[in-house]
Amino acid sequence: MPIPILSCDRNSKEKYSRFLSGAREDLTTATNRVLPILEEVRTKGDLALFSYTEKFDGIKLDKLTIDPKTIQTNIDSLTKEAFLRAKSNIEAFHNAQKRESWTKTIDGNRLGVKYTPVPSLAVYAPGGKALYPSSVLMGIIPAKIAGVPRIQLITPPQKEGIPEILIWLAQILEIDRIVTVGGAQGIAAAAYGTESVPKSEYIVGPGNAYVAAAKSYLSGQGLIGIDSPAGPSEVCIIADGEANPKWIACDMLSQAEHGEDSSAILLTTDQTLAVRVRNELEIAFVERPKRLAMKQKAIYENSAILVFPSMNDCIWFSNELAPEHLEIQTKDNDSVFSKIEHAGSVFLGPYSPVAMGDYISGTNHILPTARGSRIYSSLGVDTFLKRVTFQEVTKESLETLYPFVKLMSELEGLDEEHGTSVKVRTKETK
Amino acid sequence: MPIPILSCDRNSKEKYSRFLSGAREDLTTATNRVLPILEEVRTKGDLALFSYTEKFDGIKLDKLTIDPKTIQTNIDSLTKEAFLRAKSNIEAFHNAQKRESWTKTIDGNRLGVKYTPVPSLAVYAPGGKALYPSSVLMGIIPAKIAGVPRIQLITPPQKEGIPEILIWLAQILEIDRIVTVGGAQGIAAAAYGTESVPKSEYIVGPGNAYVAAAKSYLSGQGLIGIDSPAGPSEVCIIADGEANPKWIACDMLSQAEHGEDSSAILLTTDQTLAVRVRNELEIAFVERPKRLAMKQKAIYENSAILVFPSMNDCIWFSNELAPEHLEIQTKDNDSVFSKIEHAGSVFLGPYSPVAMGDYISGTNHILPTARGSRIYSSLGVDTFLKRVTFQEVTKESLETLYPFVKLMSELEGLDEEHGTSVKVRTKETK
Repeated sequence: MPIPILSCDRNSKEKYSRFLSGAREDLTTATNRVLPILEEVRTKGDLALFSYTEKFDGIKLDKLTIDPKTIQTNIDSLTKEAFLRAKSNIEAFHNAQKRESWTKTIDGNRLGVKYTPVPSLAVYAPGGKALYPSSVLMGIIPAKIAGVPRIQLITPPQKEGIPEILIWLAQILEIDRIVTVGGAQGIAAAAYGTESVPKSEYIVGPGNAYVAAAKSYLSGQGLIGIDSPAGPSEVCIIADGEANPKWIACDMLSQAEHGEDSSAILLTTDQTLAVRVRNELEIAFVERPKRLAMKQKAIYENSAILVFPSMNDCIWFSNELAPEHLEIQTKDNDSVFSKIEHAGSVFLGPYSPVAMGDYISGTNHILPTARGSRIYSSLGVDTFLKRVTFQEVTKESLETLYPFVKLMSELEGLDEEHGTSVKVRTKETK
Repeated sequence: MPIPILSCDRNSKEKYSRFLSGAREDLTTATNRVLPILEEVRTKGDLALFSYTEKFDGIKLDKLTIDPKTIQTNIDSLTKEAFLRAKSNIEAFHNAQKRESWTKTIDGNRLGVKYTPVPSLAVYAPGGKALYPSSVLMGIIPAKIAGVPRIQLITPPQKEGIPEILIWLAQILEIDRIVTVGGAQGIAAAAYGTESVPKSEYIVGPGNAYVAAAKSYLSGQGLIGIDSPAGPSEVCIIADGEANPKWIACDMLSQAEHGEDSSAILLTTDQTLAVRVRNELEIAFVERPKRLAMKQKAIYENSAILVFPSMNDCIWFSNELAPEHLEIQTKDNDSVFSKIEHAGSVFLGPYSPVAMGDYISGTNHILPTARGSRIYSSLGVDTFLKRVTFQEVTKESLETLYPFVKLMSELEGLDEEHGTSVKVRTKETK
């Protein structure tokens, strides 16, 4: 049962519609389980954090936070070099996203936008097998560049202690607190604040269903801002006959490696490429059998190769899909990219596998999934900046504009006070 | 029972904490009532829209949409002049928010951001007494400037027909469809799409609790983007002894005019100003008795004058409050404003009452409430733009960076496929 190869045109809804459902994790069960945890942390603070950590992690903590500056780390030099190179590239890319406040004269008045950072951020880093130090860079660097003054790292405690790499990253990123509480209780600690854990206004970073449910619920309550809810990871690849089938198969398997619900969709005009990629996938399953069942389920059940009549049809489908990751491997990548409207992060040309952006090219890997790129962006400096708009109206302008405000406020039934608040400032009432 | 005057310092939590609760409308009841409506519209489409409109609005519609171009309107010239002046100012302010896509070389590779608009927008305009044509300008103009290609206006049908002013605005804003379905069913039509109503990916604009509940629920499902959930309207005013107490009282009453749950907070260092503003409020209640009970409830129960020892304390409290609207009327407004971190829209100086920004100065009046300006911005061009990030990695850079990607992916347990997807492109595997 190899990956399906489907000959499509724009009307073949019965073939492709299942890939456009925007599958999102159903968090109802997880939400019901985390609600009492959130309430307990809100009302009992630190006490609840100690008790949940003993219950869920089997660890009796002495204290809930660590100051990374006080801890000796011993990271080898190649690891340091790798993360420092990634840090430098991510900083360069995000520095280019900085915003300048501005002022402009409009109709005689001074108007403008002042950019200010959100006041605080917590970045969640999962523990155990799901240790993603790269996500710590991706979450913290844009916030640092936006100027967020208070940033803390939230991560579950480990029997063998917090991983050294996280502590070292907290050191080089100048984070002054690691909160060693995981799961929904860790999210609740940051959202509500406790005796030991200062409240954070924003929480980002990957986590399990309980972490996702807690973030989503607290965001819905208006308590915190969050990154867009993460669904399963996905890649869409647009390729023509010139593309390398083996490389494409590897890129599809990179997504499959994230989980059995991950998805990889190849869009091509070339039936031969389709067959070659299918063969390369089968070869790869033999050559690299680690997590085979998981990868096969992702490829066989949630992925597909769609063969369309023209490159424009491939582009059309990609825009419908609004994928998290989009690779373009054709003979004219810039032309294809110029027609792309919705995608989280785009990888152009044969030497840009998604893994390069996941780790080191500089773009952010915290991206909208489940067709979210139709309306949302990747994490960036803007995520942590707000536009404070302002105006200073002159006496002359107020006099000139008063008749219009009077008329408009009457039309809306708000003339008694709105209208009067302008009228009292005009000559006629002096 | 006049407005409370409270002498505070930063420790007087018992006096001011109730203003920092970020009161938000509880939408639970409304949500439970709208869920079956959403489901009915999702599954039955137009049929459900006709039937709900007859049931809730008492109107039997022939068709669900209007093409505003086909309708003759007769708007007087002063009204046209007012709205065209507002439109021109709002356009000027939002044009200044446009974004340029960019490309940059980082570590030898081409990286960049391409800004693309969200694909479609529905702007909700309430009907009946809550007719706010100004909000139609505020919702549509930023989207037009962002380049959103498909925009529709959703508004409840009226026995006497859709108000001419809305039709004329739809004409000058070049909107090609008015959907004459109100309430949760109108929101559902736009979110899911029906035979007559195309799906919109984004929905903004004010509405009653059912409209708010529908928007909030559908946004939580990942189906649509929305403006930040609107709570009761609020103003914070920072003033010193030089400010005009009568003008300040008018500005406070402008907010009170929105509803009994609205709030106006005056922060001052000057006890005399406090007493004078209180007196002016009482005089205003005598002079302008329209909606008296509502305004008095807002002022007496949800508003206050807080007298702090220093201007820095006033600024500190304003930043804690993160108000929707902030007026600064002091002898050095720019200096005060330079310390403001969180506010939706700021009004500087004696001639900048909030009403000027509500209608005509050019800033947007769709703003975060309930302390939301700590993390969210007003509606703007950015609301409707996404950052599509991209990268094109060179062969040389891939070769150079491969050892780092190998190391990082091993650390995250993703080397088998992530690592391989880079390795296969290096010389060593050719």
